[in-house]
Amino acid sequence: MRQVTTVHGGLDPAELRSLGIQPDQVLDFSANINPLGASRRVMRAAAEADLSAYPDRNSLGLREALAARLNIAIDKLMIGNGSTELIHLVARACLRPGEKCLIFAPTFGEYQAAAAIAGADVHTLRASGARGFRWPVDAAVRIIREMRPGVVFLCNPNNPTGVYFERDTVEQLNTAVGESGLLVLDNAYAELSKCRWDSLPLLGTGNFLILNSMTKDHALAGIRLGYMVAEPSVVAAVRRLQPAWSVNAVAQAVGIAALEDEAHVARAREVILDAKAYLYRELEKLRVPVAHSATNFILARVGDAASVRSALLRRRMAVRDCTSFGLPEHIRIAARRPQECARLIEALRDVLHR
Amino acid sequence: MRQVTTVHGGLDPAELRSLGIQPDQVLDFSANINPLGASRRVMRAAAEADLSAYPDRNSLGLREALAARLNIAIDKLMIGNGSTELIHLVARACLRPGEKCLIFAPTFGEYQAAAAIAGADVHTLRASGARGFRWPVDAAVRIIREMRPGVVFLCNPNNPTGVYFERDTVEQLNTAVGESGLLVLDNAYAELSKCRWDSLPLLGTGNFLILNSMTKDHALAGIRLGYMVAEPSVVAAVRRLQPAWSVNAVAQAVGIAALEDEAHVARAREVILDAKAYLYRELEKLRVPVAHSATNFILARVGDAASVRSALLRRRMAVRDCTSFGLPEHIRIAARRPQECARLIEALRDVLHR
Repeated sequence: MRQVTTVHGGLDPAELRSLGIQPDQVLDFSANINPLGASRRVMRAAAEADLSAYPDRNSLGLREALAARLNIAIDKLMIGNGSTELIHLVARACLRPGEKCLIFAPTFGEYQAAAAIAGADVHTLRASGARGFRWPVDAAVRIIREMRPGVVFLCNPNNPTGVYFERDTVEQLNTAVGESGLLVLDNAYAELSKCRWDSLPLLGTGNFLILNSMTKDHALAGIRLGYMVAEPSVVAAVRRLQPAWSVNAVAQAVGIAALEDEAHVARAREVILDAKAYLYRELEKLRVPVAHSATNFILARVGDAASVRSALLRRRMAVRDCTSFGLPEHIRIAARRPQECARLIEALRDVLHR
Repeated sequence: MRQVTTVHGGLDPAELRSLGIQPDQVLDFSANINPLGASRRVMRAAAEADLSAYPDRNSLGLREALAARLNIAIDKLMIGNGSTELIHLVARACLRPGEKCLIFAPTFGEYQAAAAIAGADVHTLRASGARGFRWPVDAAVRIIREMRPGVVFLCNPNNPTGVYFERDTVEQLNTAVGESGLLVLDNAYAELSKCRWDSLPLLGTGNFLILNSMTKDHALAGIRLGYMVAEPSVVAAVRRLQPAWSVNAVAQAVGIAALEDEAHVARAREVILDAKAYLYRELEKLRVPVAHSATNFILARVGDAASVRSALLRRRMAVRDCTSFGLPEHIRIAARRPQECARLIEALRDVLHR
């Protein structure tokens, strides 16, 4: 099997320790989560969860709440220990060794890792920065038709580029994938997008699977919670591979509470919109090219991303060096509250114009 | 791939709902956890954990604390989302499709599930109730030598029988497994055993892997936490398959706190010892045969286990029907505080002598 090394955002305690920095001293723009943090209602649910008893292996309460919220049948839903667990289970369930897997890239590294571990023949369709990281749709349709991949991974909106395909484009891709394949649409960042569209109606068409994270929109990355929606037969095939009790009791409890706190996410969307407008404006002044993003982070071309990231980290600010995405000149910046963004811009000005 | 259906202890919310029973009305003897619940120190650590930030993907702080406590190198340690995740990852990393896997049975169902999902050729060596569920060691050694399994799973002390192999027996088995195989010793219930022995010194000999759960001894089943100890090359092979952020932030925090609260587990061992003495005595009066158990649960032959379990559940007491272990006449009873055990005995007297 191939070696798989995956780099991600978020703070690395070992690195911070080597720099003599305490994690709580760092303003983290490298993790793409709700800038308002977890809501009070969610925190209360976490505090009340029973840590001692085994969690419900079927996540019944959370699936019922989600089914009601999404207005779908409960057997189309599966909960995961973060959507990352689901990505790995889907790859294992739906890709035979040697089977082709197509990934819209640059994107989240776990699709590649999961498909490679499953022994698949992994291909990427890489968008170019010169075209604003938008993939050529006609070419994508042609490639899918010729390649006949077992699984196609599309992160929508995409991490780290912020590109967000509209419904008709996804429909085109889904048609191209056909009945013999599976289009996995990862909507992890859709909830934090101002102009999101509902991908659930596409469920009936072809072989389609929607991934969702609840850890980004509700700032619950520490507790791990994601879900998928698919036809019951696909759900059953994936669920069969999930170890017992994967979804912990706190995650199930906060998931239910989060569904009752939509207003918190709506408030976050407003903060994100303001932050992005500010960042676009200020980065333009710094002559830093920025790709248009539909969601809560932006990709900025700063030159040597690794050294910019290091210089910012020494100033107690973390951004995501995008070298592991194949973008060594780009950093990814998650939207935070305005005054926090101002601190980042100030530091960036200092770092870039030294 | 084969169908895998695994039954476990713990309360099933769907079943309770169908009976009109609230989970908190039930005295649960079906989950084998510390009868004292989680300690205050651990609960405080849980409340202080950061739910919003991504958990450390390397569980560095917890691995350091464990390495110090166990006096081993940190690269011999891997943390899992419960030991169940580790069982699945070990099976996937160490068993090729078609390769033989030997399981000492009757035992915890996830070994079989994980090995079957990995496509292994699963064999069991079944202990007989007539012999107190003790496996014939000489026969086991011979079978291992002839079969040459890639992985051998041994739960020690064993769930559900309570049988606990001594060090010299495990050494014999380990020698039989040899360098080409891997002996997985699951010590999940060792900490709650009064006469436990330290399996770490066996690490250097042959291909040996120790699994441990922190959710039983510290009553943290809701938050999922387990670890494994093995040679660094084995750890690296297993870790490669683990999805990012599998171990949530609360689990890492409570794990560190739990290591500082050994006294809580020591107190639990005393309670368990008293409870077992009481249960042995009272079950004998009820003419219910009981296997000797080295740890915190006992296996009792009650006749029709399914109906006894149902009758007890209607009386708001849960025991584990052992039919899924191939023991349809047995129930498994976890030790709880004396007055709780007295309630169970009273109910059982009523149920058995109707």
